[in-house]
Amino acid sequence: MKVGGKYFRTIWLKPEDERVVQLIDQRFLPHRFVIEEVRTVEQMATAIREMHVRGAGLLGASAGYGMYLAAVEGASRPETAKFDAHMARAAKQLKATRPTAVNLSWAIERQLKSIGDGQTAEKKIALALSTARLIAKEDEEHCRMIGQHGLKLVQEIAQKKIGKPVNVLTHCNAGWLAFVDYGSATAPIYAANDRGLPVHVWVAETRPRNQGSKLTAWELGEHGVPHTVIADSAAGHLMQHGEVDLVIVGTDRTTYTGDVANKIGTYLKALAAKQNNVPFYVALPSTSFDWKMRDGLKEIPIEQRGAEEIKHADGWFDGQQIEVRIAPKGSPAANYGFDVTPRHLVTGLITERGVCEANEKSIFSLFPEHAP
Amino acid sequence: MKVGGKYFRTIWLKPEDERVVQLIDQRFLPHRFVIEEVRTVEQMATAIREMHVRGAGLLGASAGYGMYLAAVEGASRPETAKFDAHMARAAKQLKATRPTAVNLSWAIERQLKSIGDGQTAEKKIALALSTARLIAKEDEEHCRMIGQHGLKLVQEIAQKKIGKPVNVLTHCNAGWLAFVDYGSATAPIYAANDRGLPVHVWVAETRPRNQGSKLTAWELGEHGVPHTVIADSAAGHLMQHGEVDLVIVGTDRTTYTGDVANKIGTYLKALAAKQNNVPFYVALPSTSFDWKMRDGLKEIPIEQRGAEEIKHADGWFDGQQIEVRIAPKGSPAANYGFDVTPRHLVTGLITERGVCEANEKSIFSLFPEHAP
Repeated sequence: MKVGGKYFRTIWLKPEDERVVQLIDQRFLPHRFVIEEVRTVEQMATAIREMHVRGAGLLGASAGYGMYLAAVEGASRPETAKFDAHMARAAKQLKATRPTAVNLSWAIERQLKSIGDGQTAEKKIALALSTARLIAKEDEEHCRMIGQHGLKLVQEIAQKKIGKPVNVLTHCNAGWLAFVDYGSATAPIYAANDRGLPVHVWVAETRPRNQGSKLTAWELGEHGVPHTVIADSAAGHLMQHGEVDLVIVGTDRTTYTGDVANKIGTYLKALAAKQNNVPFYVALPSTSFDWKMRDGLKEIPIEQRGAEEIKHADGWFDGQQIEVRIAPKGSPAANYGFDVTPRHLVTGLITERGVCEANEKSIFSLFPEHAP
Repeated sequence: MKVGGKYFRTIWLKPEDERVVQLIDQRFLPHRFVIEEVRTVEQMATAIREMHVRGAGLLGASAGYGMYLAAVEGASRPETAKFDAHMARAAKQLKATRPTAVNLSWAIERQLKSIGDGQTAEKKIALALSTARLIAKEDEEHCRMIGQHGLKLVQEIAQKKIGKPVNVLTHCNAGWLAFVDYGSATAPIYAANDRGLPVHVWVAETRPRNQGSKLTAWELGEHGVPHTVIADSAAGHLMQHGEVDLVIVGTDRTTYTGDVANKIGTYLKALAAKQNNVPFYVALPSTSFDWKMRDGLKEIPIEQRGAEEIKHADGWFDGQQIEVRIAPKGSPAANYGFDVTPRHLVTGLITERGVCEANEKSIFSLFPEHAP
């Protein structure tokens, strides 16, 4: 999507030198727009571990490009055994950066398999490159399709609100910054905006890491989508007063029965949506389905992160990015990363193949190859 | 309650010189504990306007003491006409500090009426002093009684959780810092804690002003009550998993039908409590009832505050208290101060006269003098 009037993806090959990967270093957003050049698998591991890049789709693409960089490095050891040993080390190193990110290991395995088909170092590099590109392209295409399917939902509402903007509420960042382009939750919003439909986004700030106010507000602003940042707590009040037409959020993991794990606070928004008859949609590429998990509330492990994130806020002061402490030094804090929204609160799932209901039957009707 | 092992109220007369009012300047909490000396009605107006003191009960007490300081000043103009003119000016000045705070004008009117009975300047000062003390004492006593009535609710739960702490969740600061002592929502917690009942408090941070993490966590910590700060968004997850036994919040205004206006985010917590069968109580001195208002959702005006509060976080960095920006400079933000929790989500109201249900009949049975 657009940044400062120019089109960007979150990760790409440097046009002048295709042995260099470029990516947006998201740690500095929204304060500074920094493009990082990644030349080694070591550097890519650091970028993933230290969250220069984040988000399921983007992590998969980053791992894909990381394995391509590994293949370029491996070519300096052309004997097959040495090359393979190098690739195995690279795979291990990349996987270890964020052990719970499913897309990481999926992309790495896909690369190992693909590269394994090459007979020469040169061929292996070519295969690694085309697979890295394909992983990124597929991610982009899934998000684009989510946008097209979700667009219909926005259009239906727009028809009833002639002249008035469709108000979409979202939580956290399931935007293009979390993928290669378009995003999941934001894809229908960008699609509507780019077609000239009047759309306005309520951006929940998403404490404690503020991915809403820092990333989603930034990307919407840069692309020119009208939006307003709110405290997470304000979502209920807005829905009570008819100020939200549609909720769209992303997901970290959705069971094949339709239970949705997403950033902490999603569940409260779903409860308010249900109570106030606001449609609540979850946008996801099908790679975010967990085809083995039945009961989200009982089975999905909820990551507990460091208390320091709750006790601090990170922001911009006097030309530098710093962290201020907002709680008493001696007070303990608990930091639950995600919550689970039970399927009965979810109006529908927007996938690359279309929109389905949040239940086994409807999900399997779109993805029959995963049906038992 | 206790601060650093020593008992404090939020406002008191300086023991060595009763023409001086002392109060805790809450702007610096939890980072610095600052006691301010207030010697003139002008200084008290500043303390109220610039939020050195806040909270319904404390604002009433502060206005009461402010009118006492005005009477002391007025005594330098002993002729009745000049004295009265000075008092009228003082009343106007104090009322203008926070025009929507009902307790302010209530305390000021009470003082004007009381002082009017005095025949000499000396007598007027004595009346102003005793009324100021009475207003503070009544506030303290109401909160103490709320504690005693609420204590029974905690005790009932404690009996079922032998050996395990009772987990109470609260939002914003309805603690002793908002009153003269004890607080409203916190009064049952302090009562339980001081009786040796094991109690643990989940403190929702309460964005954007963080009254939870800054004030409630601080006062609980200083008094020695076990607590944990959480993001506002985490309340639903905790209730889903049985980690909350009881919710107690305060209120800015409650209709005689039981609709509750309180800090933004209260409604979401009430929805989660209802969904997960967690009792949801509102603690209030009866001065917070609006005896004229029937429909909270339609009639209670919701204050919209400055966008800057949403776009910034205020905290401690390198020995100073500063504000960092956490959202893009160009992004708009909306800042709703309160929301309304409809009566059907409220298990009960804890008042100084006892606990009642959130409906007209039950409220009027405790307060028959207000029945139509």
